[in-house]
Amino acid sequence: MTGIVLGIGNSSLLFAPKGTAFDPSETIELVDPEAPHVSVFDLSVLRGDGIFEATTVWKGFPVSLENHLRRLVTSAAMTDLPEPNVDAFTAAVQKVIDAYDDPEPGPMLRILVSRGFDPTTGVGANKSHLPSVWIFLDGKGLLHELTPLTMISLSRGYASDVTAKAPWLLNGAKTLSYAISQSEHRLCGRRGIGDSIQYTTDGFTLECPNSSIVAQYGDTFVTPDPRIGILNGTSQREMFAWALQEGKKTEYKKLPLAELREADALFMTHGGWVIPVRELDGKAYEVDMPMVEAVNDAMHTGRTRELALTIGPSGDYEF
Amino acid sequence: MTGIVLGIGNSSLLFAPKGTAFDPSETIELVDPEAPHVSVFDLSVLRGDGIFEATTVWKGFPVSLENHLRRLVTSAAMTDLPEPNVDAFTAAVQKVIDAYDDPEPGPMLRILVSRGFDPTTGVGANKSHLPSVWIFLDGKGLLHELTPLTMISLSRGYASDVTAKAPWLLNGAKTLSYAISQSEHRLCGRRGIGDSIQYTTDGFTLECPNSSIVAQYGDTFVTPDPRIGILNGTSQREMFAWALQEGKKTEYKKLPLAELREADALFMTHGGWVIPVRELDGKAYEVDMPMVEAVNDAMHTGRTRELALTIGPSGDYEF
Repeated sequence: MTGIVLGIGNSSLLFAPKGTAFDPSETIELVDPEAPHVSVFDLSVLRGDGIFEATTVWKGFPVSLENHLRRLVTSAAMTDLPEPNVDAFTAAVQKVIDAYDDPEPGPMLRILVSRGFDPTTGVGANKSHLPSVWIFLDGKGLLHELTPLTMISLSRGYASDVTAKAPWLLNGAKTLSYAISQSEHRLCGRRGIGDSIQYTTDGFTLECPNSSIVAQYGDTFVTPDPRIGILNGTSQREMFAWALQEGKKTEYKKLPLAELREADALFMTHGGWVIPVRELDGKAYEVDMPMVEAVNDAMHTGRTRELALTIGPSGDYEF
Repeated sequence: MTGIVLGIGNSSLLFAPKGTAFDPSETIELVDPEAPHVSVFDLSVLRGDGIFEATTVWKGFPVSLENHLRRLVTSAAMTDLPEPNVDAFTAAVQKVIDAYDDPEPGPMLRILVSRGFDPTTGVGANKSHLPSVWIFLDGKGLLHELTPLTMISLSRGYASDVTAKAPWLLNGAKTLSYAISQSEHRLCGRRGIGDSIQYTTDGFTLECPNSSIVAQYGDTFVTPDPRIGILNGTSQREMFAWALQEGKKTEYKKLPLAELREADALFMTHGGWVIPVRELDGKAYEVDMPMVEAVNDAMHTGRTRELALTIGPSGDYEF
């Protein structure tokens, strides 16, 4: 039984120009997950320098994979990495999924792209300058639960126009530098809180340390416009697709935290799951578990897949 | 000839309570630098979650090592890591230095402390919860030069009171999450600029992506007070020690960028070096190379070592 599958990507194929022919079996080499495979002189270790994506593979179906790989391409462009070849990454992910053989139906998939060996070190100086790629599927780690969450809001320290003014801060890129997210999670853990929602110094809602937030007002589902400098949520787009299929309304907007707090219901979305929120900053929210289960089921069975690819903010955005 | 020395720390000794007896040779195991030694499931790789220090070892003398290890202890406390045992780390560093045998007199020393295996992964779940430690000495990578630098200023996106208001952002901790620093360096590289200086949205000087800034006004050397949420510079403290030894004055202050620009001379300090600045945002500065060489010489030969241990900001600080 193989409950953890790890592969080392073949970067010459994974970053080959779009349209390059490749043998799918050559895109990734499966290796022993228990062994070390990363150099100390890799920039992921030295500088948290790289990008990643994570989702659930539900009974063999990688949830939102296309949107995850599109976002990986966006993160690569924002961080000056070579462009990932989406077809080759898709083949590599499939090879990892094919090797998984465990009764757990929803293992976590993680795609890691490091900038590679640090060329300013002696070890890295003469190595390939291609990124390092690792992809794993893990059915033996902590998996998502639908238990309704308590949340608090935390300042992210930035104003809502920071991304327009200082793009070098990489807001909106999914980098490996997650020290602040980890710190926020530890803070929540100490206080017995499930997770946090970040907001700007001028009072607008951002995102959670490793997830997105969706607010429900009657029949309308609202999420912060990613152009404020947050990730374009993948599970959030699946949820919007579900809402549209159900005849409900969706909206991207610059969302004041005060307005978020006035929602009828709140949802944290990430990694192929929509998780209900039962409390934010001490205020209680309705939890409709049958609806939550319906959204997750729609996402996991591929019902929202096609429509989710078309969803995103549109029109002008005022910073 | 061994120009690159890498060791894997013995975390049970390196995080033992202060005063615990240990065999210095057991503090670290020297390994092949060309081989991979890090798990994909280590939090340094997955989340840039850890802390580090870097300095120069000049002819066998690790510059500012005590202040680097004190700062490592501070970063560990800020990030909820166990307290590093400074004596054991000192022994481990010495073992790495003893194994170095190369004509290059000034290799770079790096001390990396990762939070260790991610306990939420299947591979990490049953592993030690102690941090992972790697220490290396590298005489074959890019080494520091004293060539005067051109610099630009870049907004860090934060106001000067962010650290008081949002300590979970970890400003002032030297974490492995350096994606923004790397981004700023790439931006400088594209523009043909040597390095950058970060400032707050309300116009105060912070630090450089991986160094500190010192301004000279006549006989007074000034640097931003680290309580604004920046690192307590190690080489900067050596420079202040040199200045005091030479009968000059030193000052920590909340330093407006506009005032920094009015300096007679500017210095970027890091990793055991003081490097002169010849231009900031297009304005030219005096470069006194004999003085720069004297400061570096004082630091490298240990003349400023004792005094540097006593230097730091004092009194109240207004956020």
